[in-house]
Amino acid sequence: MKNEPHGDRLRVVLVATRNPLNIGAAARAMSNFGFSRLRVVNPYEVAFREARSAVGASAVLAGAEQYKNVTEAVADCTLVVGTTALGHRELQHSLRRLEYGARLIRKRLASSRVALLFGSEKVGLSNEDLSHCHWLMRIPTCQEHISMNLGQAVAVCLYELVRDAKLAHQVVKQESATVREVERITGVLLEALHRSGYFSPGSSASAEAKVRRLVRRLNLPARDSEVWLGILRQIVWKCGQGT
Amino acid sequence: MKNEPHGDRLRVVLVATRNPLNIGAAARAMSNFGFSRLRVVNPYEVAFREARSAVGASAVLAGAEQYKNVTEAVADCTLVVGTTALGHRELQHSLRRLEYGARLIRKRLASSRVALLFGSEKVGLSNEDLSHCHWLMRIPTCQEHISMNLGQAVAVCLYELVRDAKLAHQVVKQESATVREVERITGVLLEALHRSGYFSPGSSASAEAKVRRLVRRLNLPARDSEVWLGILRQIVWKCGQGT
Repeated sequence: MKNEPHGDRLRVVLVATRNPLNIGAAARAMSNFGFSRLRVVNPYEVAFREARSAVGASAVLAGAEQYKNVTEAVADCTLVVGTTALGHRELQHSLRRLEYGARLIRKRLASSRVALLFGSEKVGLSNEDLSHCHWLMRIPTCQEHISMNLGQAVAVCLYELVRDAKLAHQVVKQESATVREVERITGVLLEALHRSGYFSPGSSASAEAKVRRLVRRLNLPARDSEVWLGILRQIVWKCGQGT
Repeated sequence: MKNEPHGDRLRVVLVATRNPLNIGAAARAMSNFGFSRLRVVNPYEVAFREARSAVGASAVLAGAEQYKNVTEAVADCTLVVGTTALGHRELQHSLRRLEYGARLIRKRLASSRVALLFGSEKVGLSNEDLSHCHWLMRIPTCQEHISMNLGQAVAVCLYELVRDAKLAHQVVKQESATVREVERITGVLLEALHRSGYFSPGSSASAEAKVRRLVRRLNLPARDSEVWLGILRQIVWKCGQGT
């Protein structure tokens, strides 16, 4: 347990799933987000066999474990969380929005195993299934279209588990051109504006300053500055030809 | 434009989608998260017709607009964002993680229209498609399983657009029992422990304090306190019978 990666500590438990495509989709989302332990409880047998034998069935699917009931499927976990689309039954549990619930699950995964339950496509988790849950979690969908596709619900929940609030501001930025490069480009552009007649002969310094600001607002990427210089020099040359 | 709801300002643009199930899944996720404007560019015609005519095809799907090229599909937007699984081509664009990119899109949606592009299942967006994008966004999937199912990718991106960081701590809590109720239960439990012989006749006050803490750590729900009182009173009564 101690050395088990966090992604191996979450058990995604699909209860009474009917559509083989949904089992496959759940497995794919698990691979995408780094989770490995899929458990199916009382699946429609044909669906489970079809999903496993599908072309390109993943390692997650091949390693899926089958259980007869929820009790056994969650036995090694310290926290059992059910997912719900709400509204279709009176809730006997605390209900947490995904954004908050995922935070609690992440914390628990640091030290022990957690089961995340998804019910069948038609009716969700039964009251019996829910009685195994410590609390419930819901994805913040619209009141009018509350019920999600199973594979998409799994993907969204697992994404929320791996999303990184701290990395929310990380940007793989394109490097901006230096001030020197921007000034060279500005110079050639001004030359072009003069030669082209955009500037009248007696144009003011303030007109030039306007253009200088105009170029700076472009946020030129470093990689493009040579190309822009080339373009502008060509224009300057062409504009000088007729004179 | 001014009175257009934010959910109507986002254009989800599916480029060259091949599988009708994926078009349907994208439309469903849009309904779930409150977005209405679906655009398809150069879809595999059969796929688009099949998706539209599917049983239970949504209003989003029925209202989907078809375009011949990306230029026309994004013409009314001020920001065009491409999605990518990265790694398969050299990037000519800034690349932002979904967590950050979605924040920028949300901001822009407050005042104008934004297009979010998804490429075909097999090859994603072409270089031509990407040339219409201001920047790219990627879902933080594992390096080994980087490529997501199209319907799931749409769902995760739209979820990130509506997720509410401020609501992350909102809990629909079950009401806890009041201190008075907890103390009543503690009293009857202590009585039961004495009568049952769990406590020896000369047991200390510290043993009782231990039980008091034990009960408080249960965080008893208000709705359950009467039931617990009933159970414990029955036990107290039964334990008193033999004496």
